Parts: sequence; C-alpha cells; structure tokens
Amino acid sequence: MEVFEFIQGMARTDENLIQSAEELDKAIDHIVQLIQDSCSLYLSGSYPSSAFLSITACEEVAKAHIGSFTYGQHPDKKGRNMFRDHKTKHQMAALPTVPMGQRLEEAIGKVELQRIMKTAQNGGFVQVRENAIYFQRKNDKLVIPSEKIDKELARALALFAIEVFDDALVGLTNHSYEMDDITDKLFEQIKNT
Amino acid sequence: MEVFEFIQGMARTDENLIQSAEELDKAIDHIVQLIQDSCSLYLSGSYPSSAFLSITACEEVAKAHIGSFTYGQHPDKKGRNMFRDHKTKHQMAALPTVPMGQRLEEAIGKVELQRIMKTAQNGGFVQVRENAIYFQRKNDKLVIPSEKIDKELARALALFAIEVFDDALVGLTNHSYEMDDITDKLFEQIKNT
Repeated sequence: MEVFEFIQGMARTDENLIQSAEELDKAIDHIVQLIQDSCSLYLSGSYPSSAFLSITACEEVAKAHIGSFTYGQHPDKKGRNMFRDHKTKHQMAALPTVPMGQRLEEAIGKVELQRIMKTAQNGGFVQVRENAIYFQRKNDKLVIPSEKIDKELARALALFAIEVFDDALVGLTNHSYEMDDITDKLFEQIKNT
Repeated sequence: MEVFEFIQGMARTDENLIQSAEELDKAIDHIVQLIQDSCSLYLSGSYPSSAFLSITACEEVAKAHIGSFTYGQHPDKKGRNMFRDHKTKHQMAALPTVPMGQRLEEAIGKVELQRIMKTAQNGGFVQVRENAIYFQRKNDKLVIPSEKIDKELARALALFAIEVFDDALVGLTNHSYEMDDITDKLFEQIKNT
C-alpha cells in the first residue's frame, strides 16, 4: 500500500508530535469536539460548514494516529512537515481498514463509501474542503458552498469522520472508549436522517 | 492607509470576482450562514470552531467587498491571487471604518477592539485561525484549540465578524438589509453573554 510505504518512510525521532497517553487523550477530546460540531451543524441544516469540520476531524485523527511515532518531517523534502499538508493528512486518514467494518457501508452504501475513500486518497478532499467554506468563480459563474455540498455529502462525510476516528484511535486509551460512546450515538443519530 | 494603497494597486479588469447584484446577494447569503454557524457554535460552548468560522466570515466579506472591482490578481506577484492569501484578506476585512461605530466598542471595550484590529492587520489572525482547529506541539507541550481560544475571544471575534459584514456589505443591495436583520439580532444575542 502506497500510504503505508509513505508512513514507513517517515523520520522517527524522540520528538514525536504526541508523547504520552495524556496528550493523546487531549487530542481525542479535541477531535470529538470537531465531530460534535460537525454533527450539530449538519442537524441544523448547515451542510457545507459541517463537511468542512468533518474533513478537519479526519485530518486531526491522522495527526493523532501517526503523530505518536513521528513529528511529521517529510522523508524526502527537508523542512516540510506532512502534518501541515492537507492531501497527505487525508490519505493517512483514509486507511484501508476504514471501509472494512459493516457500519459505515450499511449507512451510506458501498458505492458512496468507495467514492469517499477514493476522493480522500486521490487528493479530492482538498477541493471539497475549500468548496465547503469559500465562494469562488467557476466557468463564469459565482458558486457558493451551499451549491457544492448537499445534505447527502455532508451526511456521508460526518459518518466517515466518525468511522475514521473509531478505527484509528478508539482502543488506544481507556478515555478513548468513553469518547467512543459519544461518537457512536452521533453515528446512529446522523445515520437515521 | 497602507491597505487602501494596496487595494488601489490591484489590477482592474472586466473579470471581477463578483459581477452582478445577484452574485453579491449569493455571497452575502453564504457569509450570513457562516456568521450564523459561528454564533450557534459559540452559544453551544464550542469556542474554537466558532472563532474559526468568524475569521472565515471576515475573509469572505473582504472577497465580496473588494471582489466587486477586481479578480484579485496581485499587483506585483504574477500568478498569485490575493483572495487566496489569508493575511491579505484579514487586512482587507479590518478596514479603519470598522472601529468607528459605537456598537462594537460598547460590546467588547475599546482596548479589546483595538487589539483585535491590530491582530487582523498585522497577520495575527492567521495564527488564531490555525490555533482554532489544529492541535500542535508548542514548547514541548501538546496544545489543543480549547486551550488557545476562550469564550471571551470567541465572543469578540463573532461580534467583530458581524460588524465587518455590516460595515462592508450592508447597504449595497436591498437583500443585504434583510440579511442585516438576522445579524443584528445575533449581535444582540452574543453581546448579552
């Protein structure tokens, strides 16, 4: 797997981004807050802002997951930190384990799940992320976020972010199980919309 | 004023970012949605995500305001669009007219208002924006957004974003007055917290 090779190639130092279980728990609290914010905006009908926060949650999961054994220095490009690169974070979030569970596939369907995985892996989340908060001129027309991100996409991204969190971080600390109760409830709530 | 000189120096073409009153109204709807999202997250106690969306609203106001007479090409640096540069957008949002009104100064105090204006003008919003959604390692400690953005800062930024919108865009179209009713109510609601 390309993304695994990439992660394997990262510089390992004692200066990891996350250096203790307590720090991981802090990062988890922050990620669950992002997921809660995403879900509450989704439920109030603000789909683009919700989608933006779902993608941000995925980025932060990737940092917390991989950051336990690296500070993020790029293996080839000196001075560049991968945790500041959106596309790399999206790829590290969409690990092959994510679509293996049943829950997400049942909630959004196999085709949509594969589409979301591909979008994250090929860099497409970068564009979705920008479409979600910025208006822009495209083909001689002004396009605003609500025209680019609909309910279906925001729903899929919120559920995807929860699954990404669950897959990468839940189980690593006792606290992560407690936070999982919150995100499991949100998953059910969003699924039934 | 430096920011005025900068705006004066922008390339003027027929290819403006915003090309009609209808397009400006669409941008206004999008900006008011960002403000509403920011306020609802603030009111639910999620201060960092609120602060991020307040700053995003300021950026979009600057684009809608200045984008009516330029596409954003940088006067000096070819190929660079100023509407993609966070610092420039923050400077164009924090115009000298913003602190002139009474409402914002009464709500957050003169000292805090001057501090926010300076932060926007000297590029400090860029850091606040990142602090609001990303955890990071600082001085050998993991720092998460809730440790960087408190209620007071989120409140000031939400009120600031509303005033920036009000100052730059309200009055330009009939629709802008209708949307102003929404943001005026939010201003009062946030002010009384």
